[in-house]
Amino acid sequence: MRNILIIGAGRSSSSLINYLLNKSTPENLHLTVADVSKETAQERIGQHPNGTAIALDVFDASSRKEAIQQADIVISMLPARFHIEVAKDCVQYNKNMVTASYVSNEMKALDLAVRKKGLVFMNEIGVDPGVDHMSAMQVIDRIRDNGGKMLLFESFTGGLVAPESDTNLWNYKFTWNPRNVVVAGQGGAAKFLQEGTYKFIPYHKLFRRTEFLNIDGLGKFEAYANRDSLKYIKDYGLDDILTMYRGTIRKVGFSRAWNMFVQLGMTDDSYIMDGSENMSYRDFTNAFLAYNPNDSVELKLRSYLKIDQDDVVWDKLVELDIFNGEKKVGLKNATPAQILQKILMDSWTLEEHDKDMIIMHHKFGYELQGKKHQIDSSMVVIGEDQTYTAMAKTVGLPVAITALAILNKKITTPGVQIPISREVYEPILAELEKYGISFVEKEVAYLGYNPENVRG
Amino acid sequence: MRNILIIGAGRSSSSLINYLLNKSTPENLHLTVADVSKETAQERIGQHPNGTAIALDVFDASSRKEAIQQADIVISMLPARFHIEVAKDCVQYNKNMVTASYVSNEMKALDLAVRKKGLVFMNEIGVDPGVDHMSAMQVIDRIRDNGGKMLLFESFTGGLVAPESDTNLWNYKFTWNPRNVVVAGQGGAAKFLQEGTYKFIPYHKLFRRTEFLNIDGLGKFEAYANRDSLKYIKDYGLDDILTMYRGTIRKVGFSRAWNMFVQLGMTDDSYIMDGSENMSYRDFTNAFLAYNPNDSVELKLRSYLKIDQDDVVWDKLVELDIFNGEKKVGLKNATPAQILQKILMDSWTLEEHDKDMIIMHHKFGYELQGKKHQIDSSMVVIGEDQTYTAMAKTVGLPVAITALAILNKKITTPGVQIPISREVYEPILAELEKYGISFVEKEVAYLGYNPENVRG
Repeated sequence: MRNILIIGAGRSSSSLINYLLNKSTPENLHLTVADVSKETAQERIGQHPNGTAIALDVFDASSRKEAIQQADIVISMLPARFHIEVAKDCVQYNKNMVTASYVSNEMKALDLAVRKKGLVFMNEIGVDPGVDHMSAMQVIDRIRDNGGKMLLFESFTGGLVAPESDTNLWNYKFTWNPRNVVVAGQGGAAKFLQEGTYKFIPYHKLFRRTEFLNIDGLGKFEAYANRDSLKYIKDYGLDDILTMYRGTIRKVGFSRAWNMFVQLGMTDDSYIMDGSENMSYRDFTNAFLAYNPNDSVELKLRSYLKIDQDDVVWDKLVELDIFNGEKKVGLKNATPAQILQKILMDSWTLEEHDKDMIIMHHKFGYELQGKKHQIDSSMVVIGEDQTYTAMAKTVGLPVAITALAILNKKITTPGVQIPISREVYEPILAELEKYGISFVEKEVAYLGYNPENVRG
Repeated sequence: MRNILIIGAGRSSSSLINYLLNKSTPENLHLTVADVSKETAQERIGQHPNGTAIALDVFDASSRKEAIQQADIVISMLPARFHIEVAKDCVQYNKNMVTASYVSNEMKALDLAVRKKGLVFMNEIGVDPGVDHMSAMQVIDRIRDNGGKMLLFESFTGGLVAPESDTNLWNYKFTWNPRNVVVAGQGGAAKFLQEGTYKFIPYHKLFRRTEFLNIDGLGKFEAYANRDSLKYIKDYGLDDILTMYRGTIRKVGFSRAWNMFVQLGMTDDSYIMDGSENMSYRDFTNAFLAYNPNDSVELKLRSYLKIDQDDVVWDKLVELDIFNGEKKVGLKNATPAQILQKILMDSWTLEEHDKDMIIMHHKFGYELQGKKHQIDSSMVVIGEDQTYTAMAKTVGLPVAITALAILNKKITTPGVQIPISREVYEPILAELEKYGISFVEKEVAYLGYNPENVRG
């Protein structure tokens, strides 16, 4: 029996554990699922004979090291900042490791030690980051193999609510960590490359500079720019690329409405609002508006944000009940962002039968024998229920498949890495297809921003 | 002879040194002016027999300690972050100390030691902070002495160009550190109190939420809110006050035009722009606009910021030459804020005969015997030339007067403090009047935001 240690049994581990349990008998696997709560870990395993649940506090070095020593490979599904202690133990005890998180600087610093020991530390193997890397590199490598030269790469991902569960005016519900949605885009200007020109969007303009995209069968969506679109230029080998843009997908109209919160200052997470606990939703809204005792909060807001009488963004605000003078915030020493999150969770929490949806969309522009071409490639995954969500599947299945491929020595190149080599993406994408995680490609007219090479 | 050590002979020390040299014979003073550049120090002293210039590197502990040991009182005109080492030496060698800077936490931590030794460490005794504290407390104490109850305190200060030197469309030139102007308002939402309600303005709205004020003889001005208006509620003893607002004065129209830079993202100081050195002013502007090879940078900007054809803000941009495709930025690895500062310095640097102006304006609202009253109080100081600027006078004279008052034992209460007690502000304000730094008061109708006590 080969022992796989999975640390962290949260929402994103359901499909991961399910996949590996299903493979456990033919593949001769035993799963040890470790979580702060043994019950949570046990729930994921159910009655399956090839799984063991254990309680584990990752900050308790001796029990952590003990669990790791007994494993053949370690999967860390912990929050990203906790991976590093696990990673150091894996180096010490010669264990391969898989995470779905961004490679931190600390993790990167282990690369030499990991390579010296011939270990594989695969990171960013969930969904954005993960499936985006693999699906992009598969097309980019094919274009290059055929002699093409990459001109443009745009990549969009969104975690949304499935069409059948899309029941509010915002066309949005929280399918993952609500906090990340509230503070999205903060911390610096968005930076990308268009036709060889660097472009910058400050946070307070981010949600008014969206781009549209069409997904076959689902219609029109919009995307706002991610903070650093240039990050993977080097990893993908796109040093001479003219256009590089990465964005987050929302239903059309979301961003223009969200911009109201940004303009008001409600997404600010940098200071505490005095008396937040006893504040009503209306008081909260009023705190961002000029003082005037003779006008309503409603009219002050309409005037401040210049919202026309027939603009649906107004109805979106009303739907969230932000003018309610009775509902209390009920959070002590809360920041505006925390209070806004609370208000949104009243309206945007998934109901029992709601399903989520992950959309990914790439555009590849390239030149081949003097002609310009473009390939668009889309993936749509809809969740089965609230356990086997689209998010859990697209994060967990690649992690599970990778762990098994490393155990089976199909992936052997050592080092701290992300899934951009053929050795990695080919078997994993092939296996993901069996589980409905697949891309539809089509050739379209080259839609680069500047087909005639004008400067601007 | 009593020896006054002045550390730092920069622009703000001219009036300070001049005042003390003029008093040196009757008051039996000797001035030691210490600066990294002995020449700069000597220039301030000229041929005066009661002054000695020395070269001093404040980071060289032994020569710093030696100079301090020989002094009877120490004035630090260094940048604020360098005061602390001087302050520690002053504690060690039992010397009183004066600075014009905000009390840092490190400085505050010395309070007990300073009081134990019976020393006076006076800080915030320049202009905003300084003259504002003293002139406000004088009126507030008087209102209270008469049995009045404070309802409202608003205080506005601005460093501007004098009317006779006001020659550009922005009605603004740099009369002090340009960098502070470019990044003004950043780092968190502005917070103030209006009629008992906390109000918050995010940075990207700050310059569109100005208030107007009238200064007799000079006309209408505007002010944007300072970041933390609530800071002095406790120090001033205004715990029950309903309205507390502090702002920065500009000529009318400045803020609405400045907001264009904020909206574009040009005031961002948090990231470096690749290739800044060889960028033209036009390239810089274009970096914040969407890519489109078929439209001009001018029209893209007009459309993005919705600037009407007849709006003078457009002419303000043109005046700064931001669309010039030939002028190069010429700064390596510069942030947007640094590049903007460079562009502004081309246009906003004082010419040889330009004069500066400091305006301060307070509003005091209070209740006395059941009736509401208001006193407005204004100070206008115009510089003499580019050495004895309004800024140098309003910063340097209070520092000099205070140092002498401490030497003469007119100010004796020990501790790390700011000038809010009668013992301090009465003699200093009286002396400042002789140098044209004085306030004009008038009673006006109570203009509080909510005379009828409506909730809103």
